[in-house]
Amino acid sequence: MSFNFASDNVAGASRPVLDALVAANGGPMPAYGTDPITLRVVSMLAELFERDIEALLVATGTAANALALAACLDPWGLCLCHEEAHVIDDECGAPEFFAHGAKLLGLPGTGGKLSPETLGQAIDRLPRHEKQMPAQVVSLSQATEAGLVYTPDEIAALAAVAHARGLVVHMDGARFANALVQLGCSPAALTWRAGVDILSFGATKNGCFAAEAVIAFKPDLVRSLRFRRKRSGHTLSKGRLLAAQFDGYLRDDHWLDNARHANAAAARLSAGLAGVAGIRLAWPTQANEVFAILSSGMDAALKAAGTIYHPWSPRSLADGERLGPGEALVRLVCSFAPEPSDVDGVIAAARSAGR
Amino acid sequence: MSFNFASDNVAGASRPVLDALVAANGGPMPAYGTDPITLRVVSMLAELFERDIEALLVATGTAANALALAACLDPWGLCLCHEEAHVIDDECGAPEFFAHGAKLLGLPGTGGKLSPETLGQAIDRLPRHEKQMPAQVVSLSQATEAGLVYTPDEIAALAAVAHARGLVVHMDGARFANALVQLGCSPAALTWRAGVDILSFGATKNGCFAAEAVIAFKPDLVRSLRFRRKRSGHTLSKGRLLAAQFDGYLRDDHWLDNARHANAAAARLSAGLAGVAGIRLAWPTQANEVFAILSSGMDAALKAAGTIYHPWSPRSLADGERLGPGEALVRLVCSFAPEPSDVDGVIAAARSAGR
Amino acid sequence: MSFNFASDNVAGASRPVLDALVAANGGPMPAYGTDPITLRVVSMLAELFERDIEALLVATGTAANALALAACLDPWGLCLCHEEAHVIDDECGAPEFFAHGAKLLGLPGTGGKLSPETLGQAIDRLPRHEKQMPAQVVSLSQATEAGLVYTPDEIAALAAVAHARGLVVHMDGARFANALVQLGCSPAALTWRAGVDILSFGATKNGCFAAEAVIAFKPDLVRSLRFRRKRSGHTLSKGRLLAAQFDGYLRDDHWLDNARHANAAAARLSAGLAGVAGIRLAWPTQANEVFAILSSGMDAALKAAGTIYHPWSPRSLADGERLGPGEALVRLVCSFAPEPSDVDGVIAAARSAGR
Amino acid sequence: MSFNFASDNVAGASRPVLDALVAANGGPMPAYGTDPITLRVVSMLAELFERDIEALLVATGTAANALALAACLDPWGLCLCHEEAHVIDDECGAPEFFAHGAKLLGLPGTGGKLSPETLGQAIDRLPRHEKQMPAQVVSLSQATEAGLVYTPDEIAALAAVAHARGLVVHMDGARFANALVQLGCSPAALTWRAGVDILSFGATKNGCFAAEAVIAFKPDLVRSLRFRRKRSGHTLSKGRLLAAQFDGYLRDDHWLDNARHANAAAARLSAGLAGVAGIRLAWPTQANEVFAILSSGMDAALKAAGTIYHPWSPRSLADGERLGPGEALVRLVCSFAPEPSDVDGVIAAARSAGR
Repeated sequence: MSFNFASDNVAGASRPVLDALVAANGGPMPAYGTDPITLRVVSMLAELFERDIEALLVATGTAANALALAACLDPWGLCLCHEEAHVIDDECGAPEFFAHGAKLLGLPGTGGKLSPETLGQAIDRLPRHEKQMPAQVVSLSQATEAGLVYTPDEIAALAAVAHARGLVVHMDGARFANALVQLGCSPAALTWRAGVDILSFGATKNGCFAAEAVIAFKPDLVRSLRFRRKRSGHTLSKGRLLAAQFDGYLRDDHWLDNARHANAAAARLSAGLAGVAGIRLAWPTQANEVFAILSSGMDAALKAAGTIYHPWSPRSLADGERLGPGEALVRLVCSFAPEPSDVDGVIAAARSAGR
Repeated sequence: MSFNFASDNVAGASRPVLDALVAANGGPMPAYGTDPITLRVVSMLAELFERDIEALLVATGTAANALALAACLDPWGLCLCHEEAHVIDDECGAPEFFAHGAKLLGLPGTGGKLSPETLGQAIDRLPRHEKQMPAQVVSLSQATEAGLVYTPDEIAALAAVAHARGLVVHMDGARFANALVQLGCSPAALTWRAGVDILSFGATKNGCFAAEAVIAFKPDLVRSLRFRRKRSGHTLSKGRLLAAQFDGYLRDDHWLDNARHANAAAARLSAGLAGVAGIRLAWPTQANEVFAILSSGMDAALKAAGTIYHPWSPRSLADGERLGPGEALVRLVCSFAPEPSDVDGVIAAARSAGR
Repeated sequence: MSFNFASDNVAGASRPVLDALVAANGGPMPAYGTDPITLRVVSMLAELFERDIEALLVATGTAANALALAACLDPWGLCLCHEEAHVIDDECGAPEFFAHGAKLLGLPGTGGKLSPETLGQAIDRLPRHEKQMPAQVVSLSQATEAGLVYTPDEIAALAAVAHARGLVVHMDGARFANALVQLGCSPAALTWRAGVDILSFGATKNGCFAAEAVIAFKPDLVRSLRFRRKRSGHTLSKGRLLAAQFDGYLRDDHWLDNARHANAAAARLSAGLAGVAGIRLAWPTQANEVFAILSSGMDAALKAAGTIYHPWSPRSLADGERLGPGEALVRLVCSFAPEPSDVDGVIAAARSAGR
Repeated sequence: MSFNFASDNVAGASRPVLDALVAANGGPMPAYGTDPITLRVVSMLAELFERDIEALLVATGTAANALALAACLDPWGLCLCHEEAHVIDDECGAPEFFAHGAKLLGLPGTGGKLSPETLGQAIDRLPRHEKQMPAQVVSLSQATEAGLVYTPDEIAALAAVAHARGLVVHMDGARFANALVQLGCSPAALTWRAGVDILSFGATKNGCFAAEAVIAFKPDLVRSLRFRRKRSGHTLSKGRLLAAQFDGYLRDDHWLDNARHANAAAARLSAGLAGVAGIRLAWPTQANEVFAILSSGMDAALKAAGTIYHPWSPRSLADGERLGPGEALVRLVCSFAPEPSDVDGVIAAARSAGR
């Protein structure tokens, strides 16, 4: 028996997503994203975001992020992001590749969050000369890599810093749904109304097989995207594969249900582990991920009980917090799939070990 | 009523492919292509090709081709191919992007086929100086863009020309299955035994949603592929999506059945149209595509009858053949999906118009 | 004794250029092209072209061309040029590198010249789909690789075709001075007044060591150039090296004197060879290069007499013209340096052999 | 009256370099670096380094560094260097451009120097997965950006760390001569004998106009360099321009004389400023640069006296050292050109202000 909290991508697709894909399979449809399902999905997204948008569907979050950043960056441009952001740390240089050698500069911040002060000082400290790459974009992860969320006000404050200095604001929304249900606000409030210019709207982690959308809120960011997508091999000839997943995902607020399920599981897990000896939370649980500092004994006990999770870098710990001897910082991720009983199994194992 | 012969990608997935995907959906699996289905598919491919291989699954033919070519090309290298090859004409510069500015040089040839003489002369005519990009790869399309097939002997002759000059041989096998069943030979005979070094093994056009494999027969071509795939956003986190399609595609020779079905439809269509006034075949039908020269009246009549197809460039016509006034060269593609009755509908419309 | 007509770059710098460099050497100056000599040279160029311009100095024609084209091309853009243009044939893919994978498409034309008809048809024939790279630039070589010149009217006709289709017009002016003195018109008439948007203004071949300028007539093409130059390693810290060469080159019309000298030498050589048995001119001599078709005996005799020159590709021969058995098409280039006696030596050798 | 200590590139060329250039100007020579002067210079460099080498001449240090790093890096590779290294901070992303999106990772260290511990831990901390860019190169600056030198033993220790982990060692020798004369060792001892695999051998700052060499000590790093150089526009057609500068630079140990002169000036300046109130040295003066912390009054006084210099980032200050209120860290660079009287002028101004 095992409890797999390694990642939100260990699950397959949720039932409504799979059903939509099966339903979309019959009959001929025009190719390369001109099919009626794709057109419908773009309309659904526009309605969701309460405005005209351009949305391009792709299969991976790495593609969505790299395309979005490339659309905003000159090849000699600089993108600022948190030093643990997925775009700088986990995409094997995809943004640098798509943007032809642009650079990402990582900034520190507790729990994966950037502060307006850190961002503003970092930009202002950069020399202004043709010898140095100019800052052009800031990329925010929502939820952060450490599972925290930016409120609309926090986003607006960061966007104000960025816009005042001529930068574009990108949001990596790989866990956008988890942040949204946590905050209880609208997609518009969490994005363009707060100053986000372009969004990677993730669906893979939260119930699809492989479906992401690049959503541009500024028309001039769109011009290049179709060529960039085709040229990077991300324009599916049978576009219905991506569109159908989104169709099932968005219909009847299924995506919000999935996110609520995952967040609830994480909250239950977080609460259950919080009081156990040998465990302390690294920071609050705000979405679908729990970050905990385990004693070496607890770490061994949880693994022995079949709990699967990954270690995490301590770079995002708050000032003053640090790992003690033998302690490990670990991440437990709840996808849309786990049952409360899975969560309770881990809690039980922890309590048993922590006694 | 309409008969859609626009492309092999107007269809969805075939039933066994869809079933395999549905079956693969349950339960957690490790991410990024380390799941058991991916491992099984790689084994199936190795068995199919009768040797050890490296196989990387991706979602599009453009990605497969661009990754394969990039693995063989320096950024200053030259790839020779037919002047109508998909890699040079229909991928918006994906090979140039993935290979960081490498160049493709198109060569002429009837029916999309390269001849050893044309290839050898083209390579030998290139200056040898650091001012000129050196030839490093030849890319063959199997079947060609014009629906013809290379026999194993023809491939071997081309590969001999290439290898003698230090070039690597890539095969764009977007319609590999169609060529294979036409020729009645083994996958090994049609690839590495004839000198192919790296293959884009297509499955999308022949029954999958979006599934292709880069298959390398030379180990030194493999080293870079995993990094290139990740960095281009083509490493799916939920790898089962690609693997399950291949699982359904390869199992019980389903892929060969699909190809036989499509080729038979094309043969039936070709034979039915061949004798009709106002129609002549541009060249023989050897796979799942029919290329016909239509009088303007016939063109109008077929469209009026609901037949959907695309015009085609006359560049690949044989020497001496040319389009008369008002004539159009068109392509009709049979996917795995059409019923004989669809084909017969087009033939009937043609005969009625040609009377 | 030898007569070196291999290239215009076998010479060093002309005396006034060298003197200007020596004169510029003393004392400290600010770095990276902010020195007073650079500023003066930019003013001289503006006066020469009778308008505000942006001019960036670099050391090589390849750099000038690649920077200029990259400033006009998206990474997925297409540049049309003559099939023998330097940018497509002799720069090892520098434009493709600087423009991040953009593509050059070579068009045919006698004597290296594009015609408005060929250009217009080539652009109009391109498919308009995101699968295909869109045409964005046409590059003209002045003089052409085959030593012919475009008149202002011919340039205007080509520019009209290009601009009507949204393309930018680049001129590779590696031999701009030679064309200018041949045509007897002003630099403005030969460039922006005829529709040229960006110019590679060559000085190396015509008397400098290594000095070229990218001159942009449209301000929006300039924005990226300074970053592109620095990032490609072409921003010299001691900018006076480039500027001083230009100072000597432009002052007192020295550059025009050099070009007149070279053209006169070529005209003398051309006239002297024209009537000799075993020699016929491939096309007229309009700048500083003579293209001649030699019998094998004449070829051997000239080489035996110490004449140094290179063979040339027959692709640019007029329709109907072709090389007979044993015949060779060769290029003899006159730099600013050769004395009339050098030219006469070759003519004498030819006459002696042709008797 | 002014004392210009802004940079070593405010000077022109030293006399012997200029003389060699003038001497090289006459008569025809073959193009593209096949001239006899280039061949002689490569031999001189081989003798200097006491072994077979490959050396490519280019005009800028940015080009030399970017070519060298690109030759060692996959497009998805990681180069580690000091966080203030020229390659990461002052080249507008040239290494990222030439290496097609590779990444540079800056590490801390007092006075611009990397320690073996910092380097080893940084490499070892990197995740090993295709999602992360693998470390492939370490780049050392000799002298460092902060004017300190690495001893042969220090280089060997860093190279041992790098080689044990499969990394290649690059040295940015923009101020190689200054380090060499400071240490009193041989070029071989300071490079390949200590484990350096590829060197940017600078000559521009130390007496040339624009002349640098990429010197590869491992043959497999050379293969791509000629193509990369041509394709980046750095292959001069009149190669004598670069070669002649090197000829004058290397002949009769002129380069060492220049470096000794510059270092002596810096030492004199450093000693003269050290005891003055309102000035303290940031770290020792080991080459041709003095880094001093000035009180605001001293800063104003020196500027008022006509001393030209640039502020410097405090990132490289030793742990515990920090700027007080109003204090500025500044850099004063001595080129080969200044007279002792220039130095003494600055010292006099400082003493007068510090009284």
